[in-house]
Amino acid sequence: MSDFHVYDTTMRDGAQQEGLNLSVQDKLHIARHLDDLGVGYIEGGWPGSNPKDTEFFALAAKELDLEHATLAAFGATRRPDASAADDGLVAALRESGASVVTLVAKSHDKHVELALRTTLEENLAMVRDTVQHLREEGQRVFVDCEHFFNGYLDNRDYALEVVRTAAEAGAEVVVLCDTNGGMLPHQVGEIVANVMATGARLGIHAHNDTGCAVANSMAAVLAGATHLQGCINGYGERTGNADLVTSVANLELKLGMSVLPEGRLAEATRISHAISEITNYPPSARQPYTGVSSFAHKAGLHASAIRVDPNLYQHIDPALVGNDMRLLVSEMAGRATIELKGKELGYDLTGDPERLARLTDRVKSMEQQGYTFEAADASFELLLAEEMGTRPQYFDIESWRVLAESLPGSLDAISEATVKLRAGGQRLAVIGEGNGPVNALDHALRQAIEQLYPDVARFHLIDFRVRILDQGHGTDAITRVLIETTDGKDSWVTVGVGPNIIEASWQALVDAVTYGLRLHAVTPQTV
Amino acid sequence: MSDFHVYDTTMRDGAQQEGLNLSVQDKLHIARHLDDLGVGYIEGGWPGSNPKDTEFFALAAKELDLEHATLAAFGATRRPDASAADDGLVAALRESGASVVTLVAKSHDKHVELALRTTLEENLAMVRDTVQHLREEGQRVFVDCEHFFNGYLDNRDYALEVVRTAAEAGAEVVVLCDTNGGMLPHQVGEIVANVMATGARLGIHAHNDTGCAVANSMAAVLAGATHLQGCINGYGERTGNADLVTSVANLELKLGMSVLPEGRLAEATRISHAISEITNYPPSARQPYTGVSSFAHKAGLHASAIRVDPNLYQHIDPALVGNDMRLLVSEMAGRATIELKGKELGYDLTGDPERLARLTDRVKSMEQQGYTFEAADASFELLLAEEMGTRPQYFDIESWRVLAESLPGSLDAISEATVKLRAGGQRLAVIGEGNGPVNALDHALRQAIEQLYPDVARFHLIDFRVRILDQGHGTDAITRVLIETTDGKDSWVTVGVGPNIIEASWQALVDAVTYGLRLHAVTPQTV
Repeated sequence: MSDFHVYDTTMRDGAQQEGLNLSVQDKLHIARHLDDLGVGYIEGGWPGSNPKDTEFFALAAKELDLEHATLAAFGATRRPDASAADDGLVAALRESGASVVTLVAKSHDKHVELALRTTLEENLAMVRDTVQHLREEGQRVFVDCEHFFNGYLDNRDYALEVVRTAAEAGAEVVVLCDTNGGMLPHQVGEIVANVMATGARLGIHAHNDTGCAVANSMAAVLAGATHLQGCINGYGERTGNADLVTSVANLELKLGMSVLPEGRLAEATRISHAISEITNYPPSARQPYTGVSSFAHKAGLHASAIRVDPNLYQHIDPALVGNDMRLLVSEMAGRATIELKGKELGYDLTGDPERLARLTDRVKSMEQQGYTFEAADASFELLLAEEMGTRPQYFDIESWRVLAESLPGSLDAISEATVKLRAGGQRLAVIGEGNGPVNALDHALRQAIEQLYPDVARFHLIDFRVRILDQGHGTDAITRVLIETTDGKDSWVTVGVGPNIIEASWQALVDAVTYGLRLHAVTPQTV
Repeated sequence: MSDFHVYDTTMRDGAQQEGLNLSVQDKLHIARHLDDLGVGYIEGGWPGSNPKDTEFFALAAKELDLEHATLAAFGATRRPDASAADDGLVAALRESGASVVTLVAKSHDKHVELALRTTLEENLAMVRDTVQHLREEGQRVFVDCEHFFNGYLDNRDYALEVVRTAAEAGAEVVVLCDTNGGMLPHQVGEIVANVMATGARLGIHAHNDTGCAVANSMAAVLAGATHLQGCINGYGERTGNADLVTSVANLELKLGMSVLPEGRLAEATRISHAISEITNYPPSARQPYTGVSSFAHKAGLHASAIRVDPNLYQHIDPALVGNDMRLLVSEMAGRATIELKGKELGYDLTGDPERLARLTDRVKSMEQQGYTFEAADASFELLLAEEMGTRPQYFDIESWRVLAESLPGSLDAISEATVKLRAGGQRLAVIGEGNGPVNALDHALRQAIEQLYPDVARFHLIDFRVRILDQGHGTDAITRVLIETTDGKDSWVTVGVGPNIIEASWQALVDAVTYGLRLHAVTPQTV
């Protein structure tokens, strides 16, 4: 692997995307996924600018154990006419615990004058002082030159002076940012080639406003940049930042560079999808390399030629990025994956091709309805157990009902659930209350069986995710619910799907309780 | 306007997108929109290959009255070892009534041998004969060289021979297709420049598999291509084709070319969205130039500078493509943003600093509870109106109730909602049913007020997004619901928040109906 920098800014610039909000826990999860992908640098946020980002760096220092990546803290050069040492935001960078600081600096003269409201000279001093100060304090410093390309076109000498000042003050990399995203690749290539003459190590930060974020990044690298910034799934303000996976895959697979640790690119599809579960932004089916449609062919005419040589019809082997070729007419994928997954869970299906085929058909048809087992191992294992005849039946549901209402004169809605079931030879009818309908159902179900199966008292729901599939059908759409449950030691994820969000949640709740009891090797009481 | 060809293939190659299906009527509507945008050529489909496309050309000849565009029929070169005049599919092209025929020809030697299963010589004869035959019959002919770039890299002489053969036989344009989409712009630029030496007029047809479809198209044009193919909204197989609007906007606004009739580019956003209504693919908020987020700013820090000069923060004036600048009200937002946002919506808050401060506090405290206004302009506008005392009160809710239950012996859960309210001097109590609890509430609310306010019959929910905030609190967490509603012309997004998903949805539904009625200038009937 070369010294090329793959630098992710999903959690800072990506989080500028309209509607994208990340909690501190979301950020910790995302950082682990990015590290798993093998990126070199993860920009965690802007400590000091808001309490959430400050908390993230504090928690990261304690809890994040990164294998490949170095955490970077983002911040700005000191305020005009002040000292770097006394600047509160600069102090937050020093105290963030991050070994790398990425400083944003103005490099477009108009922005210095109109947004920063200071002189061109003072801006250079701000860059110089802040970089020097942080270097003296022992941090590595990267400098993001904001609005660099527009600045270069308006006042080339000044833009270049900012680059030189940053490099001379000790910045390890000077990143040229197309902040407004208006450039085309031929311009970026030419400008980066010219800036290379400063001798500074250069990086590229591109936005997609002309649909060219990835291409602009490629042009910069071809012109000599050795540091590439981007966001997972192309998240970002307006039209988004350069998609990190597409950029990296192009570098490795098209330009023959080695920028991720060996074998990590093959995890890209899984990681891209896992992060989209966290952001709750459905992944685009058409996303280059990682989209579910990206290697899908309406086979028809070409079927025989595809069989002879699939590479005639695909630009790369999709396995290189962890994706699969799909034929839309006759779906062929699945069986091998299910066999592998079964093996992983301790079920050997190799000797029973008939059962494997039946299970594959069932998974496919459920996936068509909207189920996903990738994120719901527990529900998948129960399905497998059912197919093997070993799924325990701890209770037998007769009916359930939820009432949610907002009464005259009351501010809050209340929810009440009734669950009727048979277990241990008894018929039980129990009522549960909660501050939401699913919460009420959860209480009712656990209350009903707690005497028979005391283990359920130790189960707690720790995550509850809802995704509307088939967006564009309003309240009529299909809902997918993922529930994560823990017993304090292990945790497991179950799934439910349906047009009714409560029904979908109920399925996931029943699976969650069943899986937990089975995990604890609890014996079913005769239903 | 130059003689540059803007060539749309939405209805042929775009329709290869997974899940995209167009009826003949859909196609007629799309053709009218494309003509309205001012494209030069519209590829209508492949007559003879399926009854729908044949019918489209028959109806188009009768019903389509195009102002700017010429209709093109797509087809293939004749079968091997046959004559063009006797080929049924070639006959369908002749009889299509289209004055332009676009013929797909193989130009990659391996595809000739493995997919077409004929000799390289016979393939050249197929190109020559078919072009000559159609020219003799009076049609203009464009030739799409399929897999051209891979062919050029594998067997340059043969690929060039196909181009020459097509041009010499009378093809007006030879289109170089990156059918598998694997190229990068520097390669496309270099190869197109080399092919220019054949003297043929060249076109470009790019796919987005490396995220570079638009950039590859730009590279081809800069190298000499004068015919550009693309699809509206980047529709197409796998990762899609080059987005036509982005490509054309780049040519006009970045490269200073004039490729659409005067004034048509300013219709691009409207037309892009209108076509996405027909395809029933929700438009991407992040689509360059036309996306609703494409000129949206999380203002915060920059609000004051944006006030001084918005062009510091946008790569073009959004009005040039019929889009608007939007300021997002986010957690980072302060008073200046809310003032600007108010102005955008027609409320001048400058003269009333006390009200502005009150509104800012209220937005901040609601955002702390989990509301987000950056994606919910309509709820924000209602909040503003409330603060100004101008929010209309169309109805007064007394109570609502939802019952969701799964009965013994029944597979599906059913939902029933009761809404009690006062409006127009009456007390109304109405029941609604639905396949989910929110769907049932939506039906009940609208049914209750439809006689008083018939406009609600035109409102439809087109999107329903649920986000669980505070993940990690299980079913106890806070839920945020965003609902998008349309009246067929405008659309608006409202938000609701609460521990109870149904309560949160209810808030968003009430806002949605109130906003819509206010937008239609409906007068409230005395509550």
